[in-house]
Amino acid sequence: MTSISTAQVKLQQHREQFPALANKRYFNYGGQGPMPQATIDTIAQTISHIQQIGPFGSEAGAWLTAQMPTVRKAISSELSVTPDTISFTDNVTVGCNIALWGIHWQAGDHLLLSDCEHPGVVAASQEISRRFGVEVTTCPLQATLNDGDPVAVVAQNLRPQTRLVVLSHVFWNTGQVLPLDKIVEVCKNNNSLVLIDAAQSVGALPLNLAELGVDFYAFTGHKWLCGPEGVGGLYVRPESLESLHPTFIGLYGIMVDSQSRPVNWKPDARRYEISTPPYPLYLGLREAIAIHQQWGTPQERYSQICHNSEYLWRRLTALPHVKCLRTAPPECGIVSFQLTNHQPLKLLQFLDTQKILTRTLADPSCIRTTVHYLTLESEIDHLVEAVEKFLVNSQ
Amino acid sequence: MTSISTAQVKLQQHREQFPALANKRYFNYGGQGPMPQATIDTIAQTISHIQQIGPFGSEAGAWLTAQMPTVRKAISSELSVTPDTISFTDNVTVGCNIALWGIHWQAGDHLLLSDCEHPGVVAASQEISRRFGVEVTTCPLQATLNDGDPVAVVAQNLRPQTRLVVLSHVFWNTGQVLPLDKIVEVCKNNNSLVLIDAAQSVGALPLNLAELGVDFYAFTGHKWLCGPEGVGGLYVRPESLESLHPTFIGLYGIMVDSQSRPVNWKPDARRYEISTPPYPLYLGLREAIAIHQQWGTPQERYSQICHNSEYLWRRLTALPHVKCLRTAPPECGIVSFQLTNHQPLKLLQFLDTQKILTRTLADPSCIRTTVHYLTLESEIDHLVEAVEKFLVNSQ
Repeated sequence: MTSISTAQVKLQQHREQFPALANKRYFNYGGQGPMPQATIDTIAQTISHIQQIGPFGSEAGAWLTAQMPTVRKAISSELSVTPDTISFTDNVTVGCNIALWGIHWQAGDHLLLSDCEHPGVVAASQEISRRFGVEVTTCPLQATLNDGDPVAVVAQNLRPQTRLVVLSHVFWNTGQVLPLDKIVEVCKNNNSLVLIDAAQSVGALPLNLAELGVDFYAFTGHKWLCGPEGVGGLYVRPESLESLHPTFIGLYGIMVDSQSRPVNWKPDARRYEISTPPYPLYLGLREAIAIHQQWGTPQERYSQICHNSEYLWRRLTALPHVKCLRTAPPECGIVSFQLTNHQPLKLLQFLDTQKILTRTLADPSCIRTTVHYLTLESEIDHLVEAVEKFLVNSQ
Repeated sequence: MTSISTAQVKLQQHREQFPALANKRYFNYGGQGPMPQATIDTIAQTISHIQQIGPFGSEAGAWLTAQMPTVRKAISSELSVTPDTISFTDNVTVGCNIALWGIHWQAGDHLLLSDCEHPGVVAASQEISRRFGVEVTTCPLQATLNDGDPVAVVAQNLRPQTRLVVLSHVFWNTGQVLPLDKIVEVCKNNNSLVLIDAAQSVGALPLNLAELGVDFYAFTGHKWLCGPEGVGGLYVRPESLESLHPTFIGLYGIMVDSQSRPVNWKPDARRYEISTPPYPLYLGLREAIAIHQQWGTPQERYSQICHNSEYLWRRLTALPHVKCLRTAPPECGIVSFQLTNHQPLKLLQFLDTQKILTRTLADPSCIRTTVHYLTLESEIDHLVEAVEKFLVNSQ
């Protein structure tokens, strides 16, 4: 018998709080995280409580008004920022759109994207370009995955007219982690604002946004934080608040006078919020964050993620016909790889039959697996053995 | 003993499906509708099912792809339109913002609002004005509640430059129902687009939007439809699709090529959708609609609403010191009234102690009560008796 360490026992107990992990080997944390039972229960209890005291009225209003700051506090603790810098949004893409559309664009302005941004953000940037006569270009960061200097590439692509730089902290396809501190510095020196797509970083990397100096950081609750779909947020640096105008606007973002007439924006990042959100889901997200914090600090979780992804990367790298996109161990939980002799979809379909959940990506064409601190070494072994089996069977 | 009709027995049984109605007298349908148990159960079951098969992967993706059209179909059946005209949005305000920001505004354009629009929509219009040099004016429709001709007032306020007219189908404060068919006609004759805030009409009025000819109709699932908070939609008339550009943009609204590059909008109203929505809540909304449809057709529900609001209006009108805003029976479920000798807040607080839930409004300062087809005559009696008691006690 293999001896199981105390840490592994602790992790196995912790995992029992996540029902989705019980009947499969899960490698899609980067797509959507499994919800802890406490989140599921909190959603149900919150729905029930709101129906009990309302749903609409003085008591329900007062209760929700007291609850929502606790969600903002939980989120902000993961980002090392103050709660007033957090705006609730539906997901990453909405947060990116708030930043993209809130800038006072002038014809001739320049918007710089990396070549690894999500198609939704690319499409929004193209519409900005069309409407305001803004020039959108992409800088070739995908090629810096294994060598090259992403900071230098960004610097070379900045122009005097660059108003905004849009980058992912962690590239959703290759798993590259950008050195944001240095990139923010070169952007600041160019008077360019920085919007970060944090889909693959919040809940995965230890973060100190206050220190990082990034202007806008858009994230979701339903991936690495393991909350429900439909809840996320946007961090707005206090110094950048006045330069970012609210676009989609509603009662939740404004102050009204005694006649209910709008008189001002809310004083903080709440000004970007619109109207009635799915409250029970936000309270569920708060519980998911609490569960992670019970297991370990952001740094401890990140160390475990890297431990897991290095193990997976090493085992995959040792297989014939498998080519990991990275030539060195990953710096996050994303391990993307190609088969030199098969299309990714065939392997994904085979893995599905084994209850091993992964996903394919189009550019670069690959299989993407993601491991969390929740992932067991034995799950990684199963995945690697299944890949081996596929390769043997399909020869 | 009072004899109870078959209809009342049927309604009492139907009401048992709404747990929020069991422990209070509820008059805030216009703020938020109570959820049927089937909606609550469906949310829980959907969450559980997604965790079981995913949450992210081929099987979960295929299942959700099959489910969401059933939600679109349920919603579209309530509006008498085809499912491809419906875009999912978070709530009314988001739907209004999609229409407001999607128009190609030019400096000098005119945007016409009524003087009874929701402050969120007013604030969004003011920002449009600031950004694009659009002139925003309001037309005095509140004064036409009891006499005067709202169609003539709108017509008088149209200008050659009026690009968009924004009105509520039912005014959230006074409960006035606008004659939209005639208003749409005068706007069409002026080449003005029409955006309707449908917060108080969807789920309350029988609707045939295809016939009505309105361009954009923004609604929510969490008021008269009794669905969860955070889900709603926007109807976009097929003829107006090309003149309304997507603003907040994401993967859900676009078509991508084999390299995941954006190549076009989705061909229908889905182009305004952004990214991962709270799926379980949408399936919950579908169940709420099914429950209403089990009780009766939209016309039957509307008749019952008017029956209830007329009864409430008649009883309130008969009380001393009570002044209903309307001088004739309501044409919807909203009955707003003032006390000639007290502030509305005092009465609301007294009613709260009696577990009778109402709300106050600032302009005009009043108490707003709303009755649904679900409301019992005995609840109305309790409300009226409590108002009487308050008036006697506070003399």
